[in-house]
Formats: sequence, C-alpha cells, structure tokens
Amino acid sequence: MTAPANRQFRLAARPVGTTKRSDWEFVTQPRVDAVAGQMLVKVLYLSLDPAMRGWMNDAKSYVAPVAIGEVMRAGGVGKVVASQNPKFAIGDYVSGMTGVQDYCLTDGKGFAKVNPQLAPLPVYLNVFGMPGMTAYFGLLEVGQPKAGETVVVSGAAGAVGATVGQVAKLKDCRAVGIAGGAAKCDYVVKTLGFDACVDYKAGNLKDSLKQSCPKGVDVYFDNVGGDVLDTVLTRINRKARIVICGAISQYNNTTAVKGPANYLSLLVNRARMEGMVVFDYADRYPIAVQEMGEWMREGKLISREDVVEGLESFPETLLKLFNGENLGKLVLRVADE
Amino acid sequence: MTAPANRQFRLAARPVGTTKRSDWEFVTQPRVDAVAGQMLVKVLYLSLDPAMRGWMNDAKSYVAPVAIGEVMRAGGVGKVVASQNPKFAIGDYVSGMTGVQDYCLTDGKGFAKVNPQLAPLPVYLNVFGMPGMTAYFGLLEVGQPKAGETVVVSGAAGAVGATVGQVAKLKDCRAVGIAGGAAKCDYVVKTLGFDACVDYKAGNLKDSLKQSCPKGVDVYFDNVGGDVLDTVLTRINRKARIVICGAISQYNNTTAVKGPANYLSLLVNRARMEGMVVFDYADRYPIAVQEMGEWMREGKLISREDVVEGLESFPETLLKLFNGENLGKLVLRVADE
Repeated sequence: MTAPANRQFRLAARPVGTTKRSDWEFVTQPRVDAVAGQMLVKVLYLSLDPAMRGWMNDAKSYVAPVAIGEVMRAGGVGKVVASQNPKFAIGDYVSGMTGVQDYCLTDGKGFAKVNPQLAPLPVYLNVFGMPGMTAYFGLLEVGQPKAGETVVVSGAAGAVGATVGQVAKLKDCRAVGIAGGAAKCDYVVKTLGFDACVDYKAGNLKDSLKQSCPKGVDVYFDNVGGDVLDTVLTRINRKARIVICGAISQYNNTTAVKGPANYLSLLVNRARMEGMVVFDYADRYPIAVQEMGEWMREGKLISREDVVEGLESFPETLLKLFNGENLGKLVLRVADE
Repeated sequence: MTAPANRQFRLAARPVGTTKRSDWEFVTQPRVDAVAGQMLVKVLYLSLDPAMRGWMNDAKSYVAPVAIGEVMRAGGVGKVVASQNPKFAIGDYVSGMTGVQDYCLTDGKGFAKVNPQLAPLPVYLNVFGMPGMTAYFGLLEVGQPKAGETVVVSGAAGAVGATVGQVAKLKDCRAVGIAGGAAKCDYVVKTLGFDACVDYKAGNLKDSLKQSCPKGVDVYFDNVGGDVLDTVLTRINRKARIVICGAISQYNNTTAVKGPANYLSLLVNRARMEGMVVFDYADRYPIAVQEMGEWMREGKLISREDVVEGLESFPETLLKLFNGENLGKLVLRVADE
C-alpha cells in the first residue's frame, strides 16, 4: 500500500529582508505512520503569523530558530488520522505546532484537543489561539487597563490588535486603533467597535493620535515598533504601560532595528515598557478561552479570519502579513475537514 | 544701610549642545529681605546634577523649563539668615531648591530642615539628597532587586550610581558598575566595594560585561542611555528590570536622541524598562534617610562629594558632569558655614 504523500515547506535559506520563494524548499515526502506514543495529524488549517519571520533568523530569541532544511514551524489545527498515543484518538480535532505540511507526526507534546462544536476550527488559530491569548494576557496582565483609560493598539486590523481593542472595550476603556489605510480603519471602527482608528499611512499620525486620544494614552499595545511606537511615546500619560508584543515594521529590516528615540518619555512620565511572550501564560489559556468564548456567544467579541486556500500558496500568502494586505487573522486552509 | 549683594546665574540663552559661558548671565542684585511668610536662606552648597541640562531646554518634561532670564534652578543647602516664616528660624540649616545664587528668598515650600550634627552638609546633597533618594527608590522600588541577583549601574562613579551599587551590595546582590576610565573603575571597586566595574572607554563593553556578569543582568539602573544601554540590553536575563533614571550621554546632543535599537530584547526576555522621577517618592524620603543614615554610621555606605569652590565657577564646574571629570557627587561651595 502506498502511503499518501506529505507535502512540506522546508527552510532552504535564511532570508535577507522580505522572504522569497527561494528561501523555501517545497518537497513531497512519503507519509510516515505513527509508532508507539505518537499520533499522525492531518493538517486542516495553518496559522500565519508575523512571529514566523523572526523564527527564520539565526538569532537568540524566545524559541530556537528553525534550522535550514527543517520543516517551517507553524501552529495549526488538524484531525488525528492515526494514533498510538493514549491521550488522542482517531477523529479528534487538535491544535498545536504542526509545521507547514499536510501531515504532522508528533508525540502529542504541546497539542490540545479542540471542539469544533464550540467554534469553527479557524477560531482556534485566532481568538482561541495564539493571537487571542497574546491579546488577552498581553493587554490584561502586562497592560493592566483600568476602566475609563485609553488603550491604543497598533496593527489594529490584525489578529492580535483586533482582539486587544475589543477586550479593551469590554473592560470599559476607550479603544483606539492604529492601522494602515481607510478600509482597515473603517473595519476597526465599524465592525470591531473601536472608538476610533488612526490611519498611519495618511500622515500626521501625531496630530491624529492627539485628536483620537484627547485624554492621552494610558496603555499602548505595540505590534509594530518603528515610527509608530516613537510617535505614541510622545502622547503617553503618567504611569502609562507600553506592551511590547512585536515589531512588524522591523522584521524584514536588512539594516539595524530602529530603537525608540523618544524612550525618555518613559522617564518623564514614569512609564513602563514591557515585553511579553504568550507561552508564559500557557497554564491559564483555558481561563481566557472561557471568558472570550462567553463574549463571542454573547456577540460581544468577533473572531474574523482571512482564509487563503492551499498549502502550496504558503510563501506568497505569508507576505500578506508584511505588505499590509490582510484584514483579520491570516489562515491557510490546507485540507477539507 | 546697604544690603549685601546677591550674585546670581541667570539663564541667558537656550544652549545648543554643551553649555557655554554665554548661555549664562552673571548678575549682582541687591539682597531683598523677607516679608511675612518668607525666609532668606544664605546658600552654602549647591548641587550640580545632570538633570540641570534638561531643565535648560524648552521641552515638556517632569518640571517646567527654566525661563530665559530666570535664576538657574538648583538644589542647595544653606542657613536661614532672616525669617518671617513660623516654620523656620534664623540659624536653621535647610535644603531645597535655592537656585544658583548667594541668597534665596523663599516662602519655604519644598524646603526642609537638615541636621549638620548627623552628617556634613554636602551629604544632604548626596546620599541624603536627590541623588541618594533617586538611587534608593529607583533601585528598590522600580528595580526590585532580589538577593543573589546581578545589578548593573552606569555612571557608577557618579552620585546616583555610587549609591545604587552600594545599596545593591547591602541587599545581597552582585553589584557591577560601568564607568569611564581605569581610575573611576578602581574607585568603584576598591572604595565603594562593587564586585566589578567595567570601563566603557576601554572598548569591548559587551565582552567585559559578559565576564563581569556571568549570570547575566537582572537589574540595570541606567544613567547614561546611548550605546551603553544598548549593550546592556544584549545581556539581560528573563524578567529583567531596567530603571531609566537618566541619559547623560544624550543630554548635550544636537542631533536626535539615539533610541535603544536592542529594545526588542525586552520582548524576548519578558523584561521591563521603566522611568522614574525621584519627586514621586518625596513623602518617603525620611525612610530612606533613616536606613541609609544607619548604614553610613555603621560604615557600610560611603557618601563622597567632589566639592568645587566658588559660585563664580558654576558654568565651568557644571561641565565636569558631562566630560567625565568628576568622581562622586559634584557640589559647589558657595559660602562658609
């Protein structure tokens, strides 16, 4: 019997700047069956995230870089099609780091069952997945917003930003987004319900921010870094909290990262800038899923995914994250449920 | 009767880069006597601090800038020579913002009595004054060092840095200084008792820091900003705390402030960078004075002042702070006690 093929994207080269097709090797391997303790997961959806760009660099970070020749790391949801692991049965839906491939053979470590009755599977890559957990714990634990405060989030139309702003509203804060272009800003205000959204591409970010945040900025959740971070630093209030979640403007740099020249605003305002990595909150994910799940059922929280078809389109689809094309969580559909 | 003259340094121009003599106007005014509610303080010692450079700029900060034509702001200690304020009597020694002049006429707001029996008057501008309070609260409240951790402080031979490192040692931490030149490093280790001191002028700061901090950096108390801050950011541990107290390397810049390009190390390490302004802790100064006073009496804490003679030398003496010349707290002696 011929086992079904397993298509994989492997890292072929360390990218310089924006990733290119030649940074990947698209290979087809025979599918391997599970042995004792293992299970085989058929990948259905893959999560495409800005952080992936960082994993491709040979640099010290919160996780080891993806090695050259290794299957590209990615979170995904899938269905168990073979199992010799007592914790998982054939037919279970699971989420975990599946990698960019059709089938993932795993010992189950880091995998969790998901319930497609509770929410569509892509939601487990968005509000119930890493972006949602990042938004929830980054905002609430690191940002510590208080009712009546102003919360600003960049990348507001993206997966993390959308949830940050919506949760800020649910916690009785003023939520102000920063996004690129009128269409995204429109979506952030009209669909997601933020109080305002500033278009950083329209120029004059500083004045727009001043208008949108008449009482200044108490919490800034930063996904982008660069000039946007620097501009927000000029508008922070005393004892403001800046959550450093990412710096998408800097990920494809071939020159040095631009540090926040206005960081001394932290001193003047006795403010704080703090980094967060979502994995630190893993033991409390269920709390977040429960609270955000209730909000979703009550119609108070939207999980919107931008689903693109086909594993083979992975290299081009990933670029949508960096050229500002996507609205909502970028998900790659790999196979039928 | 002719009242004694009052010499004053007034701000004549907003400095560009390093301050020049022409940025000051040295005037002699007739001394004015106290009216109801006021007292007249004869200034004995003035505190010269890096922060003064910031006060000269027309920029939003934690205090209003010194206006053109205004007496330069400075902390000082002096003796009450006339009083119509019931809280202060002739002969009292006081500390407060006297300004750079021979006599300060004040309603007493922000002034406190000091006891020359407990410590020499210049100590009230050092360990018992703003630098000491900055070191104590910045390190303990913002830095939150735990026993066994490594505390690094820049400007280690300066007023704030010297106390930060000594207090870190008293709290059972490893104290590592950063200072410019072998003489300062020698002083920091041999006189102040730090575990190590890295000479940033010797080059190779990163490697030296690695050697001096074999377990990484848990708390970094930053007085200097610039490249030193950026280098320390490469050595921080998970959950590190960076106290932003100042940025002396940037104060005389005529170009934009250099932001910390390695700030994403905060993300990787879930670390924090937080600004502090000493005035926020004013109601708790007595606690710090009591604890540090005990350490001084027990010989565990040194307050070293670099006393320069003569009010008239103020413009040139101030520059010692920025060209790396002074060792210990820079104090200007204005008059005999």
